[in-house]
Amino acid sequence: MSDVDPTGEVAGWWATAVSRMEPGVIELRGRPVQDLIGTTSLSSMIWLMLRGETPDPAQAALLEAALVSAVDHGPQAPSIAIARMAATCGVGLNNAMATGVNSLGDSHGGAGEQCVELLTDVLATEAGGLDIEAAAGRVIASRPRYLPGYGHRFHPVDPRSGPLLSLVDAAVADGVVAGDHLRAGRAVETVLGRERSRPVPMNIDGATAIVYAELGFPAPLARGLFVLSRSIGILAHAWEEMEQGRRNKGPIPRSILPAHIA
Amino acid sequence: MSDVDPTGEVAGWWATAVSRMEPGVIELRGRPVQDLIGTTSLSSMIWLMLRGETPDPAQAALLEAALVSAVDHGPQAPSIAIARMAATCGVGLNNAMATGVNSLGDSHGGAGEQCVELLTDVLATEAGGLDIEAAAGRVIASRPRYLPGYGHRFHPVDPRSGPLLSLVDAAVADGVVAGDHLRAGRAVETVLGRERSRPVPMNIDGATAIVYAELGFPAPLARGLFVLSRSIGILAHAWEEMEQGRRNKGPIPRSILPAHIA
Amino acid sequence: MSDVDPTGEVAGWWATAVSRMEPGVIELRGRPVQDLIGTTSLSSMIWLMLRGETPDPAQAALLEAALVSAVDHGPQAPSIAIARMAATCGVGLNNAMATGVNSLGDSHGGAGEQCVELLTDVLATEAGGLDIEAAAGRVIASRPRYLPGYGHRFHPVDPRSGPLLSLVDAAVADGVVAGDHLRAGRAVETVLGRERSRPVPMNIDGATAIVYAELGFPAPLARGLFVLSRSIGILAHAWEEMEQGRRNKGPIPRSILPAHIA
Amino acid sequence: MSDVDPTGEVAGWWATAVSRMEPGVIELRGRPVQDLIGTTSLSSMIWLMLRGETPDPAQAALLEAALVSAVDHGPQAPSIAIARMAATCGVGLNNAMATGVNSLGDSHGGAGEQCVELLTDVLATEAGGLDIEAAAGRVIASRPRYLPGYGHRFHPVDPRSGPLLSLVDAAVADGVVAGDHLRAGRAVETVLGRERSRPVPMNIDGATAIVYAELGFPAPLARGLFVLSRSIGILAHAWEEMEQGRRNKGPIPRSILPAHIA
Repeated sequence: MSDVDPTGEVAGWWATAVSRMEPGVIELRGRPVQDLIGTTSLSSMIWLMLRGETPDPAQAALLEAALVSAVDHGPQAPSIAIARMAATCGVGLNNAMATGVNSLGDSHGGAGEQCVELLTDVLATEAGGLDIEAAAGRVIASRPRYLPGYGHRFHPVDPRSGPLLSLVDAAVADGVVAGDHLRAGRAVETVLGRERSRPVPMNIDGATAIVYAELGFPAPLARGLFVLSRSIGILAHAWEEMEQGRRNKGPIPRSILPAHIA
Repeated sequence: MSDVDPTGEVAGWWATAVSRMEPGVIELRGRPVQDLIGTTSLSSMIWLMLRGETPDPAQAALLEAALVSAVDHGPQAPSIAIARMAATCGVGLNNAMATGVNSLGDSHGGAGEQCVELLTDVLATEAGGLDIEAAAGRVIASRPRYLPGYGHRFHPVDPRSGPLLSLVDAAVADGVVAGDHLRAGRAVETVLGRERSRPVPMNIDGATAIVYAELGFPAPLARGLFVLSRSIGILAHAWEEMEQGRRNKGPIPRSILPAHIA
Repeated sequence: MSDVDPTGEVAGWWATAVSRMEPGVIELRGRPVQDLIGTTSLSSMIWLMLRGETPDPAQAALLEAALVSAVDHGPQAPSIAIARMAATCGVGLNNAMATGVNSLGDSHGGAGEQCVELLTDVLATEAGGLDIEAAAGRVIASRPRYLPGYGHRFHPVDPRSGPLLSLVDAAVADGVVAGDHLRAGRAVETVLGRERSRPVPMNIDGATAIVYAELGFPAPLARGLFVLSRSIGILAHAWEEMEQGRRNKGPIPRSILPAHIA
Repeated sequence: MSDVDPTGEVAGWWATAVSRMEPGVIELRGRPVQDLIGTTSLSSMIWLMLRGETPDPAQAALLEAALVSAVDHGPQAPSIAIARMAATCGVGLNNAMATGVNSLGDSHGGAGEQCVELLTDVLATEAGGLDIEAAAGRVIASRPRYLPGYGHRFHPVDPRSGPLLSLVDAAVADGVVAGDHLRAGRAVETVLGRERSRPVPMNIDGATAIVYAELGFPAPLARGLFVLSRSIGILAHAWEEMEQGRRNKGPIPRSILPAHIA
């Protein structure tokens, strides 16, 4: 307690278990920062900061694979286009990145989080006494419109899902993760394949949702982790745009526009 | 060219070397994404996305150490406090993160970038025929106010700088990096120590600037890389705050405020 | 149609009824901009841009009063504190404003929108055959936790509500607005006063919700209009902070903090 | 002073001249809020909040005309396109607005501020003993690249400048403003017309810069005021987009894109 905060109210207002400072000392989740530098991978650091403990190497590797898989999907994704356009408006690189990150909302960056919830629903329904496909069918029936984590408007098959799921399969075989969310995810895919006229394969949001859920991250962190991953692509695109030096780039070349929206 | 874009103007407007898509295909910097998942570390991925090529393992390790070192400096840093407060206002986790990232401006997140420029100045001055300390002295003299990368208002010695610089020393010894920016950085520190009444040691912005510059990143990417690093801390703090469930958290507990700013 | 967009797809993608340009011509909602400059008040302009037609003067005056009422509630409001802190981090004034606006989320800037929905619920329930207080009672009973637009954690009586509601009363008397949402809002207040141990008077979010709903704005625009209003306070505070010249202002003076969160 | 802040440090940290609260009391720049509601126009309120005093009606009218003139320039402006795209990503209306505002950086929203500085330079140079056109010529010569406030890449003549400058002329005639910045602005236009192969007329950033400078606003507030003005257009566009219900709108219709950036 300091003299000017005798009741500790101010300190309590900003209390945190994430980090602790004293002059000359920085502890992150209780670890002196100097013990982390050069010894801890970036994915282990992310895990440590979010959960307070260090993952074992196999867990960190699985997390890393998921983070790598989602870094970018090109400038037609609104977040990337937005960051590139902002980068031409005379703001800092951090501001351009923030405009992109800010756009990763419920429909653009939220599918992973929603898919974790979907799969958790399926597992809870299974726990009520159904087999997993029946549980998946019931949950699908209760969500008529849109199933987060399945289908892609551009890719018939998402090239990222298979490699990532193979790593989850291996992690299950090695006892690194339990495999329940993977099982639920595949059951949903199977039921969808049976019910729809053409297959609705799992997409990257579904595959990363399985990884994050298998590793024990709560659903909202699926969005948080996606933000970290996609921030890499956002930075790469914003930087490429800045280097090109355009000024106040609109969405469409002026020459192609009807005059009235130029 | 598509029929509706016969001149290729639209395609050119959004042309990028970062990523390429076709149905079923995602290439990042020319690499099929499925070849990257499970084989590429997150720091190698960052390097690849920003530079178009993969680093060798020693380069990636040095980059990773710098990224780990700067993830967080607690809620007294405006970006962290801002993200935590935003997280209580009923916005998405991505929006809370964006408010934090948006605040990493010239004076909060820009010191690394400015320090790269400073050290580059010193090296250019050296190339003009001075020894490195004389060059450092001349550059310091030309910047009377504030030297980015040196001194800390809280830490007498920044506990992150030493471990990070040791890794740079090792990388120089191993021929991974050339060591010029390290040499310039230490010359600045030496001259400052001679001129000021008490030592002005290099801080984390200085140490990471040296890493990024030694690895060949242009100055503005020192800010971009810092944003990626600090985003991890921003996420950890925003998430801790969201889990606590406060609503519309002001900067100071209401009980301690004079009524007129409550 | 331009030659390069023969099918009009590009033009359609960005088609808007808000504005139309040709070289030398700017039309806003079909009005040449030169006819608006100097003849149209700011509140009429807001109305025109959002709804495509000009309000009559009494409507514009009521809208203006609501916009004036909510411009600021001091730096303990997270949006204001956030904008002030961001303003010390070396970003542009527009970036500092954006961080504040970004924080006006569901719980900080959304109460007006939610209150419009609440009052619309009450009116729909009344239309089902109940008297207005019975309708209010039923709606309140269905929302156990928190009633947007009522009560204030700081003001026993919100000094803004009375003057604003008096203007709505006058507008009803003059036939400017119908008065249904006002009636619903007062019924909720009456029922709350009966049910709770102490009065729960309408707050500024409730009073502005009534104004916006009476004027025919859909619920989400209650938030949009609040953002416009509060942006004025955000600018005033961010600018005051910039002029003071602090650098990287944390939420609490360092001197009062326990070292570990400094 | 409260018991828990005996030295007043906490209160001082957040001290402000903008607003003052007590339970039941809200004062904005020293005025009880209830005295402002229904009596004060929005433009007077903006003036009061930024400057601490109320303008006279002629000043408020001139400010209002400038604010009205710049509300929108269509979806080809990056800020508008960005806000519209963000509005399709599942974020709040305030978040969509913030992404737009965040993009009003040095090159997109900063021309007014830069033009105030330019005209102030011209007046300072005149004060050094040159006639106004010679002063304008010298300042132009010192800024080889780009003159903020002059020329438009789309409009041969900006339809907003004339009407706004007519109002400034009238205000000069009525003694409302002194007319020095107007004089400087016209001298720049004259010199540019003489030096360039075709006329480079003043644009809206120039015309509003003159208004704001004549009314005594410091240069950075030209950007702040532009943000307030353009926020109206940003809201109108974001809302129109939200009502259309698109999901994750990219910059260009997918049908027109070469596959590799879809």
